[in-house]
Amino acid sequence: MTVHRILIVSGTHGNEINPIWAVKQFNREENNFKKGIEYQYILGNPIAYKKGCRYIDVDLNRSFKGSDNYHQHNKNVYEINRANFLVDQFGINGPQPCQIAIDLHTTTANMGTSIVMYGRRYKDFCLAALLQNKFGLPIYLHEKDKDQAGFLVEAWPCGLVIEIGAVAQNFYDPKIIDRFLIIIGSLREEIDKLKKNLIELPRELIVHVHQGSIDYPRDEKGDIDGIIHPERINQDWKMIKNGDPLFLDSQGIVHNYAGQLMWPVFIGEVAYKEKKIAMSYTKKEVINSINEWVQDFESL
Amino acid sequence: MTVHRILIVSGTHGNEINPIWAVKQFNREENNFKKGIEYQYILGNPIAYKKGCRYIDVDLNRSFKGSDNYHQHNKNVYEINRANFLVDQFGINGPQPCQIAIDLHTTTANMGTSIVMYGRRYKDFCLAALLQNKFGLPIYLHEKDKDQAGFLVEAWPCGLVIEIGAVAQNFYDPKIIDRFLIIIGSLREEIDKLKKNLIELPRELIVHVHQGSIDYPRDEKGDIDGIIHPERINQDWKMIKNGDPLFLDSQGIVHNYAGQLMWPVFIGEVAYKEKKIAMSYTKKEVINSINEWVQDFESL
Repeated sequence: MTVHRILIVSGTHGNEINPIWAVKQFNREENNFKKGIEYQYILGNPIAYKKGCRYIDVDLNRSFKGSDNYHQHNKNVYEINRANFLVDQFGINGPQPCQIAIDLHTTTANMGTSIVMYGRRYKDFCLAALLQNKFGLPIYLHEKDKDQAGFLVEAWPCGLVIEIGAVAQNFYDPKIIDRFLIIIGSLREEIDKLKKNLIELPRELIVHVHQGSIDYPRDEKGDIDGIIHPERINQDWKMIKNGDPLFLDSQGIVHNYAGQLMWPVFIGEVAYKEKKIAMSYTKKEVINSINEWVQDFESL
Repeated sequence: MTVHRILIVSGTHGNEINPIWAVKQFNREENNFKKGIEYQYILGNPIAYKKGCRYIDVDLNRSFKGSDNYHQHNKNVYEINRANFLVDQFGINGPQPCQIAIDLHTTTANMGTSIVMYGRRYKDFCLAALLQNKFGLPIYLHEKDKDQAGFLVEAWPCGLVIEIGAVAQNFYDPKIIDRFLIIIGSLREEIDKLKKNLIELPRELIVHVHQGSIDYPRDEKGDIDGIIHPERINQDWKMIKNGDPLFLDSQGIVHNYAGQLMWPVFIGEVAYKEKKIAMSYTKKEVINSINEWVQDFESL
């Protein structure tokens, strides 16, 4: 296996500050550097962080190759330049090449500690399986959504997002910081174990596969005119069935869910209002693990 | 008593959205309008609300008469114009005069449901006593802070802030909305009771009197270099004594509190970072209620 450097990105969204602190703390506490896989730390969007906002011009995590932002490339767009810099510097062909990228995010939704993966790359399955095996973390598999593309980790041969919430934007929460510390510390350990044939992947992986997103009720002006229903708010990962209450609008009318069984995620995420997403729907899928996941991962 | 109209302001800070929803809901549910005191509703900062930010140019709740913003009056400053509009329209001499202003706010700090009052006006004491008597709400008495002046409610003869948290900016939380609904509903009731001599003020009022604020540890560039200590975060209203841990900096060094017994409030409030406030200190004071509070209130 040739994995020798993992890129740990924090602050890809400038107002998600707990991972930034966690990385700082991890780096400092790591007195005894263990030989083996090295961590490369980078602050994703330093100017947005400085200003306390998600981004300056466009969402950095929708600005890598494959995104509309990227293809409407404009030299004056800060995040496009930043995306290019990150890939040029730490991409697989850069001067400080990293084989894996781990992008650390927080959410105002009650997602707990979770993994987000983009598409069905074998290497990502391998890494996700290692983490689900160790911690039982839920996995949100994002795919086939043309409105949402160009994510950071897709620009590396292997990569996952770690998404932890609920926590307010720009608010340091020690419990959230601790959860990041556990994940950062374990990543290298788990990969090391796999390398030394000390662990096997679980037989199957449970993933929540993205099916689509739903917007809030809106009034005639297009303004949001509803809140997530009190029985649904904070109930991420919990099944929703036909007829369940979904929104409560300003007229006091309950909007019910109409459709098949789904498992919603990112319920009420503040940053997704501008994307017209009140929550996303997923379906559960059990994927049998195959040898190629590890083989592919070992070829990194 | 001549109180016949109360101004209920929500969204003075555009990203504090739960009171806006609560007012909408209250207004709708209020089918049977009770004769007596009327509520006048207004959205404090509609443009900031639309944009999902605290303010456009300057903090509206530091833009009324008495503030530096106000005295550096600039016609191009949106919030100064808005402050003037609110007073011109709903002030005691306006076409829709309100005798009392209630300004509804949320905080990312764990303040629970609380009252903020500015200075020691008898009328405010009377109203605060009514609410503390009914709900046992803690009161933060803000005074003698030249860096913080020109608050909305000070521009009315009587007025209080209702401050509820913890809740993230721009995130609708049904529990927080409910708490606002209870307060809005009770205000009129309590004043009506006082008017009809159905209640007496409690003998004494417990207030937490503002003593000053403390900033985060900062690095040589002036950037924040510390988080609220895990033992202190979310512990608003709870006593702090000499030697208690206060901050944890990026070197892992604990910064302890040095000083007299204090009761901190607004611990880690996100919006106060720009004001260089990590938390404010208060001292407890028991104030004996006097007849003049009610007399003054009745002269409104």
